[in-house]
This record gives sequence, structure tokens and C-alpha cells, in this order.
Amino acid sequence: MAVEENPATGADESAALQQISSESVDREGVTSGFIGEVVERLDAGDEAWLRASVSDMWAADIADLFEALDPERRDSLVATVKDVVDPETFAEVDEDLREAVLEHLEPEELATAVSALDTDDAIEIIADLDEVEREEVLARLPEADSVLIRRGLEYEEESAGRLMQRELLAIPAFWTVGDAIDFMRSSPDVPDDFYDIFIVDPRHRPLGALPLSRLLKSRRGVHVQDIMSTDLTPVPVDMDQEALANVFRRQDLVSAPVVDSRGCLIGVVTIDDIVDVIDEEHEEDVMRLGGLSGDDLYRAAFQTMKSRFPWLLINLITAVLASLVISIFDATIQEIVALAVLMPIVASMGGNAGTQTLTVVVRALSTRELSRSNAVRLIGKEVLVAAVNGAVLAVIAGIMAGIWFSDLVLGLVIAVAMIGNLISAGFFGAVIPVFLERIKVDPAIASTVLLTTVTDVFGFFAFLGLAAVVLL
Amino acid sequence: MAVEENPATGADESAALQQISSESVDREGVTSGFIGEVVERLDAGDEAWLRASVSDMWAADIADLFEALDPERRDSLVATVKDVVDPETFAEVDEDLREAVLEHLEPEELATAVSALDTDDAIEIIADLDEVEREEVLARLPEADSVLIRRGLEYEEESAGRLMQRELLAIPAFWTVGDAIDFMRSSPDVPDDFYDIFIVDPRHRPLGALPLSRLLKSRRGVHVQDIMSTDLTPVPVDMDQEALANVFRRQDLVSAPVVDSRGCLIGVVTIDDIVDVIDEEHEEDVMRLGGLSGDDLYRAAFQTMKSRFPWLLINLITAVLASLVISIFDATIQEIVALAVLMPIVASMGGNAGTQTLTVVVRALSTRELSRSNAVRLIGKEVLVAAVNGAVLAVIAGIMAGIWFSDLVLGLVIAVAMIGNLISAGFFGAVIPVFLERIKVDPAIASTVLLTTVTDVFGFFAFLGLAAVVLL
Repeated sequence: MAVEENPATGADESAALQQISSESVDREGVTSGFIGEVVERLDAGDEAWLRASVSDMWAADIADLFEALDPERRDSLVATVKDVVDPETFAEVDEDLREAVLEHLEPEELATAVSALDTDDAIEIIADLDEVEREEVLARLPEADSVLIRRGLEYEEESAGRLMQRELLAIPAFWTVGDAIDFMRSSPDVPDDFYDIFIVDPRHRPLGALPLSRLLKSRRGVHVQDIMSTDLTPVPVDMDQEALANVFRRQDLVSAPVVDSRGCLIGVVTIDDIVDVIDEEHEEDVMRLGGLSGDDLYRAAFQTMKSRFPWLLINLITAVLASLVISIFDATIQEIVALAVLMPIVASMGGNAGTQTLTVVVRALSTRELSRSNAVRLIGKEVLVAAVNGAVLAVIAGIMAGIWFSDLVLGLVIAVAMIGNLISAGFFGAVIPVFLERIKVDPAIASTVLLTTVTDVFGFFAFLGLAAVVLL
Repeated sequence: MAVEENPATGADESAALQQISSESVDREGVTSGFIGEVVERLDAGDEAWLRASVSDMWAADIADLFEALDPERRDSLVATVKDVVDPETFAEVDEDLREAVLEHLEPEELATAVSALDTDDAIEIIADLDEVEREEVLARLPEADSVLIRRGLEYEEESAGRLMQRELLAIPAFWTVGDAIDFMRSSPDVPDDFYDIFIVDPRHRPLGALPLSRLLKSRRGVHVQDIMSTDLTPVPVDMDQEALANVFRRQDLVSAPVVDSRGCLIGVVTIDDIVDVIDEEHEEDVMRLGGLSGDDLYRAAFQTMKSRFPWLLINLITAVLASLVISIFDATIQEIVALAVLMPIVASMGGNAGTQTLTVVVRALSTRELSRSNAVRLIGKEVLVAAVNGAVLAVIAGIMAGIWFSDLVLGLVIAVAMIGNLISAGFFGAVIPVFLERIKVDPAIASTVLLTTVTDVFGFFAFLGLAAVVLL
């Protein structure tokens, strides 16, 4: 549940803090000026200032502050402010740092923090603890909470079950608007913030949803089943979060009911969690295209090395393939050393043109905009674009090389090789990801290395082979 | 406003369509099987089937269907179904295709579609029309709508003003919960779907927000000012959409009030529009890292060529720089042709290691996780990671080259060159984007080309220079 105001903060203090917090963060988050000041106060041991500043900040901003500090200062800040921060901070902080942050909290403090959170945030934190700690924290929670959390932990990571909140309002179809409003006013079990009321049948299967605005605009005597939306999208509890995000996007949903295998309503996923999923997803795409297994900004140096190494090793092996092609033509190069000078131009142009195509195609696959029905058309367009751009660039490169080495035939060779290489780059830049998708390999992670290999091998072969035939 | 059900569709027909639509789309969108069927029906001229199928689909799915078809069939489908689709379809369809789709609508039809939409979607469509058409459509709208749309068009593209809806509910602070509920039940001006009521002062400046769930849980006699949240984040109408998305993310907002320069409440931005902004933003990042000005999936071939060409031309020029470095050592290469064979390995490893660092740093800059306070630490870590991975890979490459050419000194040369090149790749991969950000150049668009140039030039120079000194 969103903590609206820190109960520990009195009204006078709060006015003073308003002052601090308007300087410490601008509209987009913590300022580097504020981070600098935090560093100074940490070094000076000014605990009172630190606790007062942090207690009034948004959870996301405190998490950013934790992330911006070096490990030593971070530890000291966490230890100083752990009991005054919004508990959501612990769910907001980057996964790679969460363990280090949570270490500072005693089981008792963790239990207090967890019990103030929605089940989805609570599960995220509990999932990061080791077995022993987990039991210690769960034992300190109210029975009802710990049961829900234990059940939540049984769902797969990255599934709807992990994202959903258990807190929801479900009412029977025969109720009137007045019944619903009276129930909400009198029952202590109604969740804090929600957008839709769900209407369920006697077996608790969802029949419809009622946006609160519609409830409020209707007269008390109206039956909820007459005004509910029946075009519900019940989400199975094991649905993958990426698919779930697509459902939200397509239907502009704000919340979606989650059902178990028998179709019974067991939770609700809300849009704020989906925004996080969308961010994660995009981050994954960007990182994979860049040859990384994931964002390692907050990972320790040794972990970062280990995760990046395999990709570099694969790249070393594929680079040797390109070298083997060159070695076929070593006699030609010894004869005409200008070939060695110009070689990287052909390879680099092919790599770049191919990457342009690849980026568009990988993106289109991940947004499901590319399917069997338009793949052939797209490949055709990419080849055409590459051919025309290749022709123009070939003229420029050909003239330049011809003048540089006073050899018009050499200019012609590089021009022809470049056209061929760009066409193959356009073709393979589109075909490789489509092919990988079809054989169920993530195109984002494997396309780049395959494409560079193909454009290098093809580029060197075309350029040096043509030169060997024409120039020798 | 979301069109809940197409009024033209009777109840019986609707049951039949439920059947069709459950086959045509799966949970994530239109299936390629369905697209294939649409193509068949289009070719057979089965207009009745097409109109019936499409009239019951989500706007986002119809937009996907339009996007998946080739231009000719798309034209024919749009002409067939334009009056039965959810009008939101025209706002959902990709910008590069929107003009071609809207061309099929007469001003009268456009006006009907536009008047069924929220102001933000309406403005998006109207903004895409040329001057003459725009006036023709606006003249056909109710006075109140056309005034709002004209005013909306005056705001900058990608600003809060363009994203906001004018439809909102603002009430005075002295009202009670009962007053608010009675007003909502009786007033025809209350918007269809919303999540918060805003409380304003007599000059219409926002004082607080009241989530509907809180309104519903309170007794009729309670004053709204006693239960409203006062930690509002009023957004200036000219705020950039990217900054706005960060505000939503940080505070887990569902809607935010938009104020004009005098602080008066003039609109509200909702999370569904922010999800679109987040998607756009990410797309921009991915495309720029891939050397593209934007997603050109739906752009015609000629437009695609024109937009990709400048990047390739820049790359040609920088590739020549690398060639110039090689040409310094042409005598060395002629002596030892193995250097030409091994050259691409050094360059390619540097490029890949640098891209890994670059991807993490560009991403951290765009999410504002990287600031003056942690930049130096990050650069240090990147250099360390590159040095250690470089050392391991250098051993592998050195042994391999030594055995391949039966020349241990050559193996040593490539090993040393590779360590140096990877360290420089780690250093420049982190420093280049940070530097570009500081001089206000978008790191996503310019970093890659600068980095490849640096790693190529440095790699060739280190490898060939070292070889010239040691081996000759």
C-alpha cells in the first residue's frame, strides 16, 4: 500500500522538509547536487539531517540515491535511515544491490517493512532472502500475510502470479450500486487503492468488471450486473509477464483479473507493475543487442567480467573465421598491399548496413509486428534499400580508392565488392533474426554475432576474391 | 472515450462474432492465420465477412492488421471497413502509415471518428492532416470540440499539452463526499473513465486529488478536503513527454494534473498515454544505437534509403581513417602478410568489448542512473573489467596466432595489442557517451560511430605499430 505520509513526521517538521525535498529532487529525480550533499553529511556523520531528508522522499528517489553511492557510503546510509524510509524503497532498489541493502535489516525490521507492502512487492523482497532469513521473517508476519506470500512464492518468476496483488474487491452479481458503496464504507477488508470492482459468480469466477467511475455515476438502485463490462480479459496465473504486458498495451487496461486453473479470481495485476515489466523487457532487448546478458551497471566487477566473457569468446572464434578467409588470399595481399588497407572499409560498411536492418527486424519481431504474412515483403524491401544505398556508396568509395592508389581497376573492385556486401548485409540482416525466431532462439541475443560473421566473411571474400581475379 | 461495444452490432450478431474474434486473435494480438484469412477474403471481395470480423476487434488489433498487409490490400481493407472500426484505430495505427489510412476517409467520416475520441487521440489524428483537410474536419465538429483541438494543436509535439485529455472532474474544496457523488450521478459533463477527482481553489488551481476508491470508502458527510491527497505533482503544460514519463515512473502515478503557466488546472495525463511514451522512447533508444533515425518498418523504401544513408556515409568516412592508419604500415604488412590476416581480429574484439560498455553506459544515462557522482567509479570499473577479460582473451588469441603462423613473437604482439585495445575500448566506451551527454549531444545516436572509429584506429595502430617495432 502506498504510504501517503510518514506517520513519524509531525506537521511542522514536514513543512521544513518540504523545503529540503524541493531542493533535493527535481522533476525527474534526485539531483547530483543533492547526492553530493548526502556524501558530505555521511562523511560528517550528520545522522539527523540524513534521516530527516530521506524520510520525506519518494521510494524510487531513495532507491536512486542508494544506487548512486559507492558501496561503503551506501552501507552507512542504509544503516542510518533504514527505519525511516518508505518500505517500498526495498522493492524499488536494483536487484543486483537488493541483497546488500537488505543485509542491514534485522528480521524484525524486515517483517515490519514487508507487512506494509502489497503482496507483489512483499514477495519480490522475500524471494531475495536465503532460506533461513525467509523463515525468520515469515514467522514474524501475521498468519494471513505469510500464507499469501508463501503461495505467491510458488508461482514462477516473471509470471502473472508474481506480479498480482491479492488485495482486491469482488462482489456478487445480484448486488446493487448501493450495496457495493455501503460495503466499501463499512468493511475493513477493502484495499486502499484500486480502479475496478470485480463481479464474481458463486464459485468466485469473474463475470465482469466495474470501473469505479461508472459505479459512482450510477444510481444506488441499479444492479451491478447491468452496468458491468463483460469484455473481461481474465489472465491465467502462469501467464508470462511479457505476454501480459502486451495484453495491457493492446487493450489500454489499467488492471486485469488473474484466475487460477479452475477459473477462480485470485488476484489483480495493475498497470504500475506492468510499466516496470515494460521497462525490464526493453532493457533486456537493448542489452542483448549490445552483447550483454543483462544490465550489469550495479554488478560487482568480477560478476560483470564473468557475464561478458562468453560473448567476447564467441566473437573471437567468429573473428578467426574472417581471418581464415583473408589467409586464402595472402599471396594476393602481398602483391597488392592496398587491399589490406581497404579491407576494413568493406567489412565495416557491411557490418553497419546489416546492423541497421537487424535492429529494425529484431524490434519488429519483439513487438510482434513481423509475421509470416509480411516477412517476405520486408526482406525484399531491405535488399532493395541496401542495393540502392550500396550503389551510391560504392561510387563514392570506388572513386576515392581509385584516386588514392591511382588505380581505376582497384576502385572498380572495391565498388563492386561493396554493392555485393551491402546487399548480402540487407538480406542476412533480415533473414537471420527471422530464422532464429522460427527455431525458437532469441533473435536479440544471437543475431549480431551471426550477422557480423556473415558480413565479414562475405565482404572479405568478395573484395579479395574479385581482386585476385581481376588484378593479378 | 473507449467504445465499449459497437452500437451497430446487434446482440445475436455479437455472439457469432465472439466466435470469430476468439479465433482471429490470441492473447497477444492478431494471429498470422487470421491475417492469411483476411487476405483471402479481401481477394475474394467478401466485404460482409470483413466488416463483421473487424467491427468487434480491439483498436490496437485492427491497427496491427492494417500494418501487416501490403499497401494495396491495406487500401482495400480500409475502404471496406472504415465506418465500422473503433475510431481509436486511426490513432493506434503507426505514424508512417496514418496518412495513407486517413486518405480513405471523407471529412465527414473523419469528423465522426474524431468526435468519438478523447482530445489527445483526436489531436494526434488532426495533426497529421494537411491545412485544408484539417479545416474541413474542424468545421464539422461541435464548436466546443474544435476549440479544444485547436488549442491543443498549439502545444509543442511531445509535450504534456499534447498528451493530456481535457475531460476531467474538478470540484471545490468545501464539497462533501455526498456532494461529489450526487454531482457525478446528475451531471452530463462527467467524463466516461477516470481514476481521480481533482479538488481546485476558486481560481481553478489544483489543491489535491481524490482517488475514487477513497471517495467511495468515505461517508457522505465527510469534506473532500479532509481526505484528499495533497502531495500532488502538477505538471506544466509544456513539460517534455520523456520527463513526464519519469515522473509517472518514480511516483507510480495513474494520472497527473496538467496546469498552465498561471497554475490553473487545464487537463489530465493518464497512464495509458504514458505507456505509449515509454514504448516510443525505448524504440528511439534501440534505433539510435543501431544507427537509425527511427523505426522505418512501415516507411516506403525510398524514405528508408534517405534516412539511413547519412549514417552509412559518416561510417564510410570514419572507416577511411582506419585505412589511413593501416596505410602507414603498408611496408610492414608486405613483409609479414600474417598481420593482414590477423588485423580484423584485434579490431573486432575492440569493437565488441567497447559496444558492451557503451550499451550499459548509454542506458544508464538515459535512465539518469549515471551522474557526476558515480561516473568516475563506473569508468574505473569498466577499464578493470576490460583489462581482465582482455588479458584472458589475449592469452587465447596469442597462443592461437603463435601456433597458426609458427611465430611466438607474433603471438605475443597480438596478445599485447589486444589487451591495450580492450582497455581503450572499455575506457572510451564509457567516456564517449558521458562526454557527449555533457556537451548536450544525444549519446545514443553519436556514440557508436565515434567508438568504432576510436577502437579501429587504436587497434590497428597498436597491433601494426608493435609489429613494426618488434618483428622487423
